Amino acid sequence: MAKTPRILKTKVGIIGGGPAGLMLSHLLSKSGIENIVVEMRDHETIRNTHRAGILEAQAVKMLTETGVDGRVLTHGDEHAGIDLRFNGESHPLDFRDLVDATVTLYAQNEVFVDLAAARQRDQGDVRYGCEVTQILDMETSTPKFRFTDETGEQFEVHADVIVGADGSRSFARRQMPETLRQEFKVTYPFAWFGILTEAPKSAPELIYANSPHGFALISQRSESVQRMYFQCDPNEDVNAWSDDRIWTELQKRVDGPDNFQLKTGPIFDKTVLGFRSFVREPLSHGRMFLIGDAGHTVPPTGAKGLNLAFADVKVLFEALDSFFSTGSDKLLEGYSDLALKRVWKAQNFSYWMTSMLHTPVGGDPFMAKRALGELDTVTSSRFGQQYLAESYTGWPHA
Amino acid sequence: MAKTPRILKTKVGIIGGGPAGLMLSHLLSKSGIENIVVEMRDHETIRNTHRAGILEAQAVKMLTETGVDGRVLTHGDEHAGIDLRFNGESHPLDFRDLVDATVTLYAQNEVFVDLAAARQRDQGDVRYGCEVTQILDMETSTPKFRFTDETGEQFEVHADVIVGADGSRSFARRQMPETLRQEFKVTYPFAWFGILTEAPKSAPELIYANSPHGFALISQRSESVQRMYFQCDPNEDVNAWSDDRIWTELQKRVDGPDNFQLKTGPIFDKTVLGFRSFVREPLSHGRMFLIGDAGHTVPPTGAKGLNLAFADVKVLFEALDSFFSTGSDKLLEGYSDLALKRVWKAQNFSYWMTSMLHTPVGGDPFMAKRALGELDTVTSSRFGQQYLAESYTGWPHA
Repeated sequence: MAKTPRILKTKVGIIGGGPAGLMLSHLLSKSGIENIVVEMRDHETIRNTHRAGILEAQAVKMLTETGVDGRVLTHGDEHAGIDLRFNGESHPLDFRDLVDATVTLYAQNEVFVDLAAARQRDQGDVRYGCEVTQILDMETSTPKFRFTDETGEQFEVHADVIVGADGSRSFARRQMPETLRQEFKVTYPFAWFGILTEAPKSAPELIYANSPHGFALISQRSESVQRMYFQCDPNEDVNAWSDDRIWTELQKRVDGPDNFQLKTGPIFDKTVLGFRSFVREPLSHGRMFLIGDAGHTVPPTGAKGLNLAFADVKVLFEALDSFFSTGSDKLLEGYSDLALKRVWKAQNFSYWMTSMLHTPVGGDPFMAKRALGELDTVTSSRFGQQYLAESYTGWPHA
Repeated sequence: MAKTPRILKTKVGIIGGGPAGLMLSHLLSKSGIENIVVEMRDHETIRNTHRAGILEAQAVKMLTETGVDGRVLTHGDEHAGIDLRFNGESHPLDFRDLVDATVTLYAQNEVFVDLAAARQRDQGDVRYGCEVTQILDMETSTPKFRFTDETGEQFEVHADVIVGADGSRSFARRQMPETLRQEFKVTYPFAWFGILTEAPKSAPELIYANSPHGFALISQRSESVQRMYFQCDPNEDVNAWSDDRIWTELQKRVDGPDNFQLKTGPIFDKTVLGFRSFVREPLSHGRMFLIGDAGHTVPPTGAKGLNLAFADVKVLFEALDSFFSTGSDKLLEGYSDLALKRVWKAQNFSYWMTSMLHTPVGGDPFMAKRALGELDTVTSSRFGQQYLAESYTGWPHA
């Protein structure tokens, strides 16, 4: 017979120790609100998972101004624009000039490293390699969850509030009653083929290219390592792509009368990134709340994933802070609606950028021409540029 | 045996006497360039065809500043905004404040009446009730077309240039060689149910309403006659709709916590308007040029149809003026590319407004929520409002 699980009492039990869960834990601890973070993967696995890394200024502030770490300022790269390239021509958008804002390139695993180090420094209770097996009593004021740690020992967390921050395949989300939830999704008929290459920068800013051969994104990681992507079939086999074949494909998508040339180098990482838009409504049930990818996934085109997770964290943290200091659950009850307002704006922005920049699969020729008409309208209008820049650099937090 | 057709010599032979053909004829005559307009329908039929009537300021100027008529200023209604209504709430856009521009409500048949009267006043050669049967030699410098007039007499127009201004079912367009043309289209799974009613105005500005029951447009025609539309099935039978049923349907689509009420009255006209996006490329072949609906059709949501036709007219008139004064066909050769640039911007705008405001048929719940996220983004951002207002009131003419 299974042993009785060991009981851990806390105020907020957080399932998931990625950037969203750790950032919430950090803010709660700073406010003196006890919490426990339980994460399935081990520290090394998360640290080595390459993800997008474009941070809105507000996300940068959440890292620096709350005392996580200033490393994003010294190791991140501030970017004040992007280049929308179509019909073989570059159309730079200058975010500082347009909306007086910038974004910062800082890989998501670096955000994780900083947050994990800060939790350790501040003696936060963060447990890796732990599998959550059950969530109990979430409709009561004493919700609980059970987990098994790396050694096989079983625990039961007794909390006032449980937070599901366990990513797009969220276990927490799936424990909420089916009859009370709605799920919205789009599956795209394409994916991104992503590479890391040892090469110098090809351009100072990110290039988002619409070409007859499909979309490409020319991004940067450091002076000597670059990140690039090109639109591909979701079932593409990375092993079928030699370095030469990849460079030929990428170059085709940025070719133009200006003879723009990519700077090439050895490719040391190749992955196919799936594309999906997903929202779950509501983002709460009883005393359980979802944040980040557990509640919603955006395609990478708008670079909103991590930023949206941090925006959720901010709204939920303020609600929890109010709950534990006043006893009123008014803000907690409003969490889902308030967070979803931004989620749907970000879903729209990501869908917009995706449909404007990618070649429609099935090759609908009207839609391909329409997208070029849209790029022309946006780039030839200062208002259009400002509208895009404001969304890209991030709407104000709620 | 058929008699030899009577030959009419001119510089520009215009097939189609709707607003586009007549406006081009007017401008050419003013510049002393001889032209003949041949129209299939009779004057009365065109005069009684109700169409949208939102004119960009530039279209108003083309009527007034070129000496067609000032009636658009005295009988048209200047509008300085629209209301985007969603989630039962009104979001007024003030075009004057946003982009320092307005539009004018003036029914398309009134534009026709003014242009037809001006051509008559100026002794233009405009022939109604004439069927064009053949276009000849369009690849040569002496293109020709044949037509039969109301009495059955046959004519052959010998011109330097032929213009197809004969609307969306264009005969002219279909005479261009199939191998050299590309056609782009979207067929929408919905239509607009349009009514005319004897009722006072329900609101000072046009209301574009996104509702769970589908789109509605509350428009105005005069103090005592109003035009309204609601999204319907393309095969809807107008006879199945009593006045009561129509008012109930329209009211549902504008309902909200503000208790906004439509002002009702007897309905005296009911039609179903098909929805279609269409572009033909190129807009020319040899010495034949297409303008307006003959070359492209937009869905009515963006109110761009007539405005786009007038923009074509302006570009083609300048090219013809240059051709007849200098002999150089450089501008004529550039007509198609230059006109198409605006066409694709307008196609995108119309598609954008349509997809943002209508209930997706098949009811894709993600897309319905995304559209609300987009309306929220646009209306909560001054840049978003300006971007929309600039497109609605019209980009500068080329």
